[in-house]
Amino acid sequence: MRRTFIPSVMLVALIVAAHARGADDPLPSWNDGPTKKAITDFVAKVTLAGGREFVPVHERIAVFDNDGTLWAEQPMYFQLAFAMYRVKRMAPQHPEWKDKEPFKSILAGDVKTALAGGEKSILELIMATHAGMTTEEFVRDVDEWVSDDLHPKTKRPYVEMVYKPMIELLAYLRANGFKTYIVSGGGVEFMRPWVEKAYGIPPEQVVGSRGKLKFEMRDGKPVLLKEPTIDHVDDGPGKPVGIQQMIGRRPVMAFGNSDGDLQMLQWTTAGGPADSSKSPRFALIVHHTDAEREFAYDRQSHIGKLDKALDEAAAKGWTVVDMRKDWNAVFADK
Amino acid sequence: MRRTFIPSVMLVALIVAAHARGADDPLPSWNDGPTKKAITDFVAKVTLAGGREFVPVHERIAVFDNDGTLWAEQPMYFQLAFAMYRVKRMAPQHPEWKDKEPFKSILAGDVKTALAGGEKSILELIMATHAGMTTEEFVRDVDEWVSDDLHPKTKRPYVEMVYKPMIELLAYLRANGFKTYIVSGGGVEFMRPWVEKAYGIPPEQVVGSRGKLKFEMRDGKPVLLKEPTIDHVDDGPGKPVGIQQMIGRRPVMAFGNSDGDLQMLQWTTAGGPADSSKSPRFALIVHHTDAEREFAYDRQSHIGKLDKALDEAAAKGWTVVDMRKDWNAVFADK
Repeated sequence: MRRTFIPSVMLVALIVAAHARGADDPLPSWNDGPTKKAITDFVAKVTLAGGREFVPVHERIAVFDNDGTLWAEQPMYFQLAFAMYRVKRMAPQHPEWKDKEPFKSILAGDVKTALAGGEKSILELIMATHAGMTTEEFVRDVDEWVSDDLHPKTKRPYVEMVYKPMIELLAYLRANGFKTYIVSGGGVEFMRPWVEKAYGIPPEQVVGSRGKLKFEMRDGKPVLLKEPTIDHVDDGPGKPVGIQQMIGRRPVMAFGNSDGDLQMLQWTTAGGPADSSKSPRFALIVHHTDAEREFAYDRQSHIGKLDKALDEAAAKGWTVVDMRKDWNAVFADK
Repeated sequence: MRRTFIPSVMLVALIVAAHARGADDPLPSWNDGPTKKAITDFVAKVTLAGGREFVPVHERIAVFDNDGTLWAEQPMYFQLAFAMYRVKRMAPQHPEWKDKEPFKSILAGDVKTALAGGEKSILELIMATHAGMTTEEFVRDVDEWVSDDLHPKTKRPYVEMVYKPMIELLAYLRANGFKTYIVSGGGVEFMRPWVEKAYGIPPEQVVGSRGKLKFEMRDGKPVLLKEPTIDHVDDGPGKPVGIQQMIGRRPVMAFGNSDGDLQMLQWTTAGGPADSSKSPRFALIVHHTDAEREFAYDRQSHIGKLDKALDEAAAKGWTVVDMRKDWNAVFADK
C-alpha cells in the first residue's frame, strides 16, 4: 500500500501545484522576467491599500493604442483593408471608379498601385467609404466586414488577430480596478462596433480619430450623418488632446508601440500638480521583434514606425516588450 | 397594563412604518404623483430581470443637461458669472480693459451694459478668460471661483445651487445600474473640476462644449494649451453629436429643461435598429414654475427658453416636472 500511496499523494500535490500556478498567474502568455515583473510590481504597489503609492480606484485609468499594440497592423492598417473591402462592395453604385484611382487599382486587386498616391489616395479612399452615410448604416458596414473579410497573410478574420498577452493584460488591469481605454489613430466609429467583444472595452471607452457628424431629421426620424470632414486626428500630439477631451483625467498607465504614441506616453508619465496622485505612472512599448510568429519592424517601418519613442523609452526607463522573448503566445492559437 | 401596552406597540409600529417609508423612498424630495411615478415605473421595468423591457446594465446610459436641469441658470448662466469673476481677477494684467467693452462695464459692475453687445460680447468674454492658459492652470481658475464667488440673488456659492431632487435622482439611477452623464452646452473644462463633488459624476462622464487644445512642450514638460478656437458647441443639434462622439451609445433616459435639449430628447427617444434595446426610452423636462423658491420662466425667456420642447413633450408624452408642484424641496436647505 505504502509504495503506491506515496506516489499518488505526490501526483496529486504536483497537479494541485501546477493548477494553482496556472490559476494564480493572471498573465500566462507572458514569460517570467523583468517585463512581466515591471507590470505586476507596478499594479501591486498602486493597489496596495495604505501604501505610499496607492492610487484610488476612480483614478485608475489605463490607455492603450490599438494598431500594433492590441491587434496587428501589417501589411497595412486594418482600417485600410476595411476601406478597400467597402470599395469592392460599393463599386456597382460607382461605375466611375473603373477609370479613377485609387479605386480602379483596388478593384483590379492591385493594392500597391492604389496606394502609390500616398496620403492623398488614402484620404480619398477613407472619405469615399467613411462618409455620406448615417452612423447606424456605418455600423452595419463595419459589422459586415468583421464577419466576412480575411487577413491576406493569415487568412483569418481580422478581429482574431488580437494579441493574447494584451487581452490578458486588459483583463488583469480591470480585475485590479483599472478602467481600460483605447486611444487610437484609428476611427472611433470604425472601432466601436467590435472592440467590446474583442477586448471587453465598451464604446464609451474608445478614443479615436473622428469625422464631423451632422444631426438631421430624415422622414421624421433623427439621424447623425457622417460628413467628409475630419474633426480630430487622434495620433501623435492628438492623443493627449483626445484623452483630455474624452477622459479629462491624466492616465496612470499607457501602452503603445510606435512614435505615434510618444506624446501619449510623455503626457501620461509627466504627472502634474492638478492630479491628486502626482507620482506613480507606467509606460510600456510593444516592440515587434517576432518575424516568425508575427512581424518584425521598428525604426525603418512605414507602418508603426518606432524610432524616437524607442530612444525615449531607454532614456526614461519605460518598459519595452520584446515580443519574441516576452510572449509565449502572440495570437490565441499560436 | 393592557391599555398602556397596546398604544406602545402601535407607536412603535408607526415609527417603524414612517422610518421604513423614508428609508425606502429613494426620491424623498419628489412629491408622490404622476411625475415621480413615471420615473420609478420606468426604472422598475427596465431593471426587472427577465422582463419584456429589461435593459442590460451596460446599456443603461442616462444623460442630463446641466444649466437649468441640475443647477440654476438665472439671472445668467453661471459660466458667464465665472467669466466676469475672471475678468476682475485678470484686470491688473490688462490695463487696456479699462477702455474696452465688454470689460470696461464688467469692471464697473454694470453687467447689463457689458452684455448689451449680445453674442459678440459674450464670445469675447469667454475667449479672454477661457483661452491662453494650460488645462491645469484653468482648473485652478475654476477652483478659485467655486470657493470664492457668490450668487448675486441667494448670496450662496454657485455649487450649492444644485437641485436636491435631481441629486436624489442621479443617485437613484446609479443605484439601479445607470451610468449618469452630463451633456451640457457649458464648457467641459469648466464643469469637470466640480461636478464630481457636486453630482457624483466623474470627469470622463461629462460631455460639453469645448475649445481647441494644443499639445506642446514647455520647459521639457508636456502641457495642453487652451486655444481661442471653438471646437464643438454642445447645444441643440450639437448634443446628439457630442453624445455620439463621447459615449457612442444611444442613451436610455434623457433629462433637460429647454429647447437646447430638444434634439437630445429626440435622439434618445427615437431608439433605432442598431440598438439591441429598441424600445424603452424615457425623456423628462424640468419646467421652471416656482418663482418663489427658484425662478419661473419658459417660452419667453432669454435664458433656458422652453417653447418647442414643451409642445413636443405634450405631443409625445414626455414627462414634464412642474417644479412648484412636484418638488417639496428645490435646494438642499429650502
